[in-house]
Amino acid sequence: MVTETKVRVRYAETDAMGVVYYSNYLVYMEVGRVEYLRQHGYAMSEVNQKVLLPVVEASCRYLKAAALDDLLSVRTRITERKRMSFTFGYEIVNAGTGELVASGHTRHGCWDPASKTVVPIPEWLQAILSVDGSLH
Amino acid sequence: MVTETKVRVRYAETDAMGVVYYSNYLVYMEVGRVEYLRQHGYAMSEVNQKVLLPVVEASCRYLKAAALDDLLSVRTRITERKRMSFTFGYEIVNAGTGELVASGHTRHGCWDPASKTVVPIPEWLQAILSVDGSLH
Amino acid sequence: MVTETKVRVRYAETDAMGVVYYSNYLVYMEVGRVEYLRQHGYAMSEVNQKVLLPVVEASCRYLKAAALDDLLSVRTRITERKRMSFTFGYEIVNAGTGELVASGHTRHGCWDPASKTVVPIPEWLQAILSVDGSLH
Amino acid sequence: MVTETKVRVRYAETDAMGVVYYSNYLVYMEVGRVEYLRQHGYAMSEVNQKVLLPVVEASCRYLKAAALDDLLSVRTRITERKRMSFTFGYEIVNAGTGELVASGHTRHGCWDPASKTVVPIPEWLQAILSVDGSLH
Repeated sequence: MVTETKVRVRYAETDAMGVVYYSNYLVYMEVGRVEYLRQHGYAMSEVNQKVLLPVVEASCRYLKAAALDDLLSVRTRITERKRMSFTFGYEIVNAGTGELVASGHTRHGCWDPASKTVVPIPEWLQAILSVDGSLH
Repeated sequence: MVTETKVRVRYAETDAMGVVYYSNYLVYMEVGRVEYLRQHGYAMSEVNQKVLLPVVEASCRYLKAAALDDLLSVRTRITERKRMSFTFGYEIVNAGTGELVASGHTRHGCWDPASKTVVPIPEWLQAILSVDGSLH
Repeated sequence: MVTETKVRVRYAETDAMGVVYYSNYLVYMEVGRVEYLRQHGYAMSEVNQKVLLPVVEASCRYLKAAALDDLLSVRTRITERKRMSFTFGYEIVNAGTGELVASGHTRHGCWDPASKTVVPIPEWLQAILSVDGSLH
Repeated sequence: MVTETKVRVRYAETDAMGVVYYSNYLVYMEVGRVEYLRQHGYAMSEVNQKVLLPVVEASCRYLKAAALDDLLSVRTRITERKRMSFTFGYEIVNAGTGELVASGHTRHGCWDPASKTVVPIPEWLQAILSVDGSLH
């Protein structure tokens, strides 16, 4: 239910404060949800041939700084699934110390590129978006 | 009270969906708050000689897509000021169409690099962080 | 012949060394060439409806560091024009000190999205790509 | 002599042309050289406690486009070592198709943060920077 994937902090992702720049946690969340989908059977490129999943809302709480070369573990799960949208929840943990670095969520809609409209979550996608109630 | 600054969407900020990648709105928010501080008398580099302002929380709602070359207007104001933290609110508007593209907030603490501790908002900073109640 | 445009260094563009991360100079070059095209009559979005201009080669020499909040001036000109490709040359100068921060080039081909092939530089584009021989 | 490391293309790294934005290959090169150093015994964070390795020159040739979700292999080696600088060479290959996507180099100096001066390459670093003559 919870997918775990690792990212190592790149220089490019740090800023002059010496730690990861705050918007890059949203990039790590992308890595987490793409891996979630892959582990449930769908490469992002396959998903996108059927439907796009634009982010309609995102949030992040920053608890600890992460520095260059830190190995982070992105834990991703589904926290909500409605008819027209669904929500990924993320916990980003320092894999070395075990400390929670950041947590957040992204809510997504479904966009059909053929009809150029918002559409309900298709069934094949619903099937892999089971809400995980184990945390929070 | 509300600072307005323009950013033009760069190729580097778009993604394969053809529109601005979602984390880059947090970069635009940075541009907005740095400009807010400048227009209130402080260059970010001056601020940082005294105190760092790490983001402790951020959120964004995505309402419309923005595309390459769009000119965006970032409207920044203070929405909350407490003893230990303060919050910037943002509205990002397509300057061509007038449509609201995204809105969000960032909450910041104060970090004293000398003592390496969190500190209350210093008085000189409080003086320029007046809560704007005109919107929302 | 030489277009000049300003960019202000964002936190997002710096890294843990305290200065602009090296790949971001290529983003500043993008800002420079998009502005070059605009000042010669074409918004990038218009250009792209006719032809894409993929980069086939890029280089950058890093002479001085640029820091947060520095105002940089990107000077862009055409240094070469062949049948199938053309080259932008860039000089990135610290607008405060006048010092040359970086210089570089990007070579571009023309890609026709309709036929999905590389094409010669169309005449309307040749007309605005006059080689500037004043520098170097 | 040649270090190989994998990166998977993120949405954040693509642009509105549908492929990897050109400056991000320089980020992949960073991943390659950091991994080179790690496989030769030094984490980048350890290296930086002794010496910084600012890029003084970079180049990239773009041969094939890389798309979202592509798995890229970054092959990194030392192509030159002088007294005051050294050069990494890179080949970025699509791990799925085997095709060469991009190649390039970065030349680095050594900066001593204590004395704030450029310094010759220290001996411990020379020891792991053996020029690889097998390619080119």
